[in-house]
Amino acid sequence: MKNIKLTIEYDGTRFSGWQRQINGISIEETIDIALKALTKEDIKLYGASRTDAGVHARGQVANFITNSIIPPERFPAALNGLLPKEVVIIASEEVPMEFHSRYHSKGKAYSYVMLNRKTRPAFMNNYVAHVPYKLDFEIMEKASKYFIGTHDFAAFKTKGGTVKTSVRTINSIELIKSGIEITLNIDGDAFLYNMVRIIAGTLIDVGRGRIQCDTIPEIILSKDRRRAGKTAPASGLCLERIYY
Amino acid sequence: MKNIKLTIEYDGTRFSGWQRQINGISIEETIDIALKALTKEDIKLYGASRTDAGVHARGQVANFITNSIIPPERFPAALNGLLPKEVVIIASEEVPMEFHSRYHSKGKAYSYVMLNRKTRPAFMNNYVAHVPYKLDFEIMEKASKYFIGTHDFAAFKTKGGTVKTSVRTINSIELIKSGIEITLNIDGDAFLYNMVRIIAGTLIDVGRGRIQCDTIPEIILSKDRRRAGKTAPASGLCLERIYY
Repeated sequence: MKNIKLTIEYDGTRFSGWQRQINGISIEETIDIALKALTKEDIKLYGASRTDAGVHARGQVANFITNSIIPPERFPAALNGLLPKEVVIIASEEVPMEFHSRYHSKGKAYSYVMLNRKTRPAFMNNYVAHVPYKLDFEIMEKASKYFIGTHDFAAFKTKGGTVKTSVRTINSIELIKSGIEITLNIDGDAFLYNMVRIIAGTLIDVGRGRIQCDTIPEIILSKDRRRAGKTAPASGLCLERIYY
Repeated sequence: MKNIKLTIEYDGTRFSGWQRQINGISIEETIDIALKALTKEDIKLYGASRTDAGVHARGQVANFITNSIIPPERFPAALNGLLPKEVVIIASEEVPMEFHSRYHSKGKAYSYVMLNRKTRPAFMNNYVAHVPYKLDFEIMEKASKYFIGTHDFAAFKTKGGTVKTSVRTINSIELIKSGIEITLNIDGDAFLYNMVRIIAGTLIDVGRGRIQCDTIPEIILSKDRRRAGKTAPASGLCLERIYY
């Protein structure tokens, strides 16, 4: 028996998210089908991050236990021909039997891309969040720094899930402006349900003057979801990396 | 009667190209349908560039003659609600009656994006050309400079079309490497059929050592299509701008 760790890239546009659902096709199920076809085993895939419908990944991680004789590093070549074009395995390796992609993750990095112009985007429209309002980038950048550190992020979480605490640590946050595109790069130990999208939505509200920059610490302390900004669209979000 | 100039952005993935075709849906037809629904006129749209199936645009230009009383600058707002999400009008203005988007173009700029890694791309797979071979970027950059200037580009043209001469001027060419992504930016007075894609394919062949860098001037002089590289995939190509 071997424990195999996969690094996975996907375009989440047409999927119902990572996790198997009654409605729609999930990424998990898509990879499961390919794994079963390849190994003839009834494999259980453990994903590190339950990305939502429409959310993308360049560095999702999952692991599975197998009796397959396929050499551990050969899974990308063996699986990619069986997967649809929106899903690809970019690396695989054998890991200790006790390794679990979710429980052993030490940190995650996400990017969130906003397209800031009045007209909706057509080119790459599935990979950005359209923000039609005039944004003050400098003030958004200043506001973003308040999120760094260890805080109770209850105000930045959609209800649901079974987490015991809403205390999380954000290691770094950066906002980059390139023409009409604003990219938020965020790195933390773990993230609550919709946390990155709510932070992105709050920064958009700061940029358009609906939330005052220096009230961010107060909003965090309030633990009140209603005081933070809207959950920004899934399309802008990409799971970049998971650390172990 | 007014002559209206539109600037158009589109994701060409699911279209048969700009020009109306018997098989598949074209961008031209898609905009025609919206224009007819809006104006109730039988409008003829003149596109500046006949982009192929799968080719994208951030700055396509087209013009049409109309008796509509819609203010010239209101066409984006009026049309975008009638267009599919992959097509959007980003600007409109009234131009002199004699203006023709194709005949009066003074120059065009294209970008061509290559994703250079062994594994096929899943994320943004419709916007890049996958190049699985090891590429020597410096030598590709050196080779690219040979294309600058006025040359007979007959070796870099797919047969077809009715152009009188294959002499074209390339004003500038630049190659940018960012991680595993290589972007070719090319600006010229006009381009032959598939010219940018054949130049990209030739640079890929130079990068992998199949074509020697310093033979490019000779290949240009030969006017022999068989000596240049393959036509690189449509997905990597984007029409960025048209100058007047």
